[in-house]
Amino acid sequence: MGISNLRPGPRNEDGLTSATAVLRQRFGDRFQTGEAIRAQHAHTTTWVPPQVPDGVLFVESREDVQIAVKLAADYRVPIIPFGTGSSLEGQVNAPSGGFSLDFSRMNRVLEVNPEDLDCTVEPGITREDLNTHLRDTGLFFPIDPGANASIGGMTATRASGTNAVRYGTMKDNVLAVTAVVASGEEIRTARRARKSSAGYDLTRLFVGSEGTLGVLTSVTLRLQGIPEEIAGGYCNFPTVRQACEAVIMTIQLAIPVARIELMNTLQVRACNAYSGLSLPESPSLFLEFHGSPAAVGMQSEAFGEIARDNGGGDFIWSANPDERAKIWKARHNVYWSAKALRPGASAIATDVCVPISRLAECVAETEEDIAAHGLIAPIVGHAGDGNFHVSMVIDDKDPAEIAGAEAFIERLNARALAMDGTCTGEHGIGQGKQEFLEAELGASVDIMRQIKKSLDPLNIFNPGKIFSLD
Amino acid sequence: MGISNLRPGPRNEDGLTSATAVLRQRFGDRFQTGEAIRAQHAHTTTWVPPQVPDGVLFVESREDVQIAVKLAADYRVPIIPFGTGSSLEGQVNAPSGGFSLDFSRMNRVLEVNPEDLDCTVEPGITREDLNTHLRDTGLFFPIDPGANASIGGMTATRASGTNAVRYGTMKDNVLAVTAVVASGEEIRTARRARKSSAGYDLTRLFVGSEGTLGVLTSVTLRLQGIPEEIAGGYCNFPTVRQACEAVIMTIQLAIPVARIELMNTLQVRACNAYSGLSLPESPSLFLEFHGSPAAVGMQSEAFGEIARDNGGGDFIWSANPDERAKIWKARHNVYWSAKALRPGASAIATDVCVPISRLAECVAETEEDIAAHGLIAPIVGHAGDGNFHVSMVIDDKDPAEIAGAEAFIERLNARALAMDGTCTGEHGIGQGKQEFLEAELGASVDIMRQIKKSLDPLNIFNPGKIFSLD
Repeated sequence: MGISNLRPGPRNEDGLTSATAVLRQRFGDRFQTGEAIRAQHAHTTTWVPPQVPDGVLFVESREDVQIAVKLAADYRVPIIPFGTGSSLEGQVNAPSGGFSLDFSRMNRVLEVNPEDLDCTVEPGITREDLNTHLRDTGLFFPIDPGANASIGGMTATRASGTNAVRYGTMKDNVLAVTAVVASGEEIRTARRARKSSAGYDLTRLFVGSEGTLGVLTSVTLRLQGIPEEIAGGYCNFPTVRQACEAVIMTIQLAIPVARIELMNTLQVRACNAYSGLSLPESPSLFLEFHGSPAAVGMQSEAFGEIARDNGGGDFIWSANPDERAKIWKARHNVYWSAKALRPGASAIATDVCVPISRLAECVAETEEDIAAHGLIAPIVGHAGDGNFHVSMVIDDKDPAEIAGAEAFIERLNARALAMDGTCTGEHGIGQGKQEFLEAELGASVDIMRQIKKSLDPLNIFNPGKIFSLD
Repeated sequence: MGISNLRPGPRNEDGLTSATAVLRQRFGDRFQTGEAIRAQHAHTTTWVPPQVPDGVLFVESREDVQIAVKLAADYRVPIIPFGTGSSLEGQVNAPSGGFSLDFSRMNRVLEVNPEDLDCTVEPGITREDLNTHLRDTGLFFPIDPGANASIGGMTATRASGTNAVRYGTMKDNVLAVTAVVASGEEIRTARRARKSSAGYDLTRLFVGSEGTLGVLTSVTLRLQGIPEEIAGGYCNFPTVRQACEAVIMTIQLAIPVARIELMNTLQVRACNAYSGLSLPESPSLFLEFHGSPAAVGMQSEAFGEIARDNGGGDFIWSANPDERAKIWKARHNVYWSAKALRPGASAIATDVCVPISRLAECVAETEEDIAAHGLIAPIVGHAGDGNFHVSMVIDDKDPAEIAGAEAFIERLNARALAMDGTCTGEHGIGQGKQEFLEAELGASVDIMRQIKKSLDPLNIFNPGKIFSLD
């Protein structure tokens, strides 16, 4: 049973028809039901089949969200928050129909507090727009999941990315949220203090809840000072094992790397081909250091020693922005380089995360699995967190290839769980990983269901995501 | 209405009598009902009046906890986890009677994974015992709330302390817990991967839940490498404002201070008197730096410059352990030095936390308040987090003094909330801060209640804490 055979959920046709009429009357042009726009709001870059909503409401204010929530409750119909549509596990699908709440117009920066290193934004702002807005303050928001995702979507999926090893994930960088809950009220989960032990941590409950407990209306974020200097570098190793040993030692010595990314041999080869580079074709680490020029220099030297101790080649690094861009170009283009391995095919990304002591073993076994099944699937990882992605390059129109990729994902997840890892380090559960979540956390999923039923008794908030309620 | 007039909750006398008989039969000597031992398990260092449990069960295993939970459910009686009794807001009281679960014998280290920088322990181990156990691994557990608290208690109250500015709070350092929930099952909230986006963040829900959602049976913690070098220092400033400006600049420049503690003038004076020191009697910062000798030197120099720029005196620092101990001795003895300001009196600590841009203002207004009301109450703060403690030195047998202190706490909390702060940075809510939690988070407290009712429908887990259910 794979996600490619996704079944629709039950539809409340009467409610959907009535609610559609009310939304049209209430919101005019801000409510759209055209086929193209609906399809766009169920967009996914994986093989999760699109399940389009019945309409799309472009919300512009908390009041709009409150009206939508009240309507959803009155007519017992789903609402599904939509940021930029870059989620990977079917998070924006509408299996039981309902209405997509598009946040692209609810994208203001509400407040920046430079002395406190925080800001409050509406959920629809993208991380790049936020960083553009912040530029003059000397601050930046560090979390970088690759895609130019919305802050609301990143919050809802507990996103992270390449520099989580230094700055943490959304869990660590959201100070508070406001959300419209089932009662129609807007709650605020915390104040702006940097820490608090005041009651249940509702902030962390909303981070990663994928829109299933309420609709975010603002997010208060921690910011960082823009580093005085940024240096980048790379280093190749004879084996994945040795590269991972270097990572472990770097973390143990508390060298504050900002990024430490692993590419396996096939991924390096793909990058060379795609970007016209001539990197040594063996497992490689790409690093970035943030700090004062002196600190960055010390960190780079310390890592260079660690690399040598673990059989690595020379650690090539530079603080020059152009040089650094050249070094990181390969890493930034992994998606396109993977796709280019097989013209006309799609590259479909999946992720798992294991304790870093098991990373080498997990990657090595996964490479053997890939070879044994004749798949084309380069690997790139946020090695400092034990998190890695496999990009399966497949013909996603061919059911046999899809079935093969799905079987691979089952083996990959079983492998990660057997190593005390998680089925997803940063993509979330959505529709695609529900069976793995059950395997990973067992009875804890029942606790999640109890919370869901208690906070969303009518099941209007993004139903069918994370777990089934049956 | 102050906490000093705490009312008992409803008691289920029949259930308590029957459960007592069963516990006695089942556990023999491991179940104690003597007056002294019961009183000890409602111990609190504040004026929260003790509300003793009906008995104390010394649990030794997960199975013991499961038996206790089943019994509590069968007889509808409360169970209250007990670590070392160092909580400050009445967290271990038994307002409706019931049974204290003493974890002092459930204190094993179950697993240490040096390569992954994590360990799993039973809840009863104290942080000092854990660090003694870890010493040979080159790792340590950094969170230091002052008291030698149990890891279970620190988890349950979302503790932090002096070095949270560098290492975070329990929220950031608990990777997973196991807990016996209302069904009697033991759940595990997460795997050992350093990050995950698999479903609701139940780990963070249990951290800070003060025993109200289930009983912890193990905690998986992140560890840190013991720093190659530790340097400590202090610096005095003409005003609290200037000391706080130095803190803000230090945080903005991302100097990775391990501790940055503020003492106001009265606190410095108390330390001089108590510890025979001759520190300049003005607002002071005490700092600690962790890292390589070179990094520690760079950080200390950078801070020295910041201090000078903000009107500070010389920054006196040393990496020599004896010198460092002397510098920090004053900070470690603040509790005793406060008490010594008024022989025979008690020092009662309360905490609030505000955005750091408001810290100077909040401390200054609080000093004026203290002076205007003729209180003796030195101030010490985890300045990097905006968190500060006021030690009220009072005769806790004098109702007028208690009333005066309670009125002061109300004003202090109102002031912190008006500055977008929290009523508790690290002590938790317990019984003492429930009214302030309502003021702070409003409708969010209803969401907490819904979660509590859903996960603990019989209200057996530490009832009467954090919020009332009515």
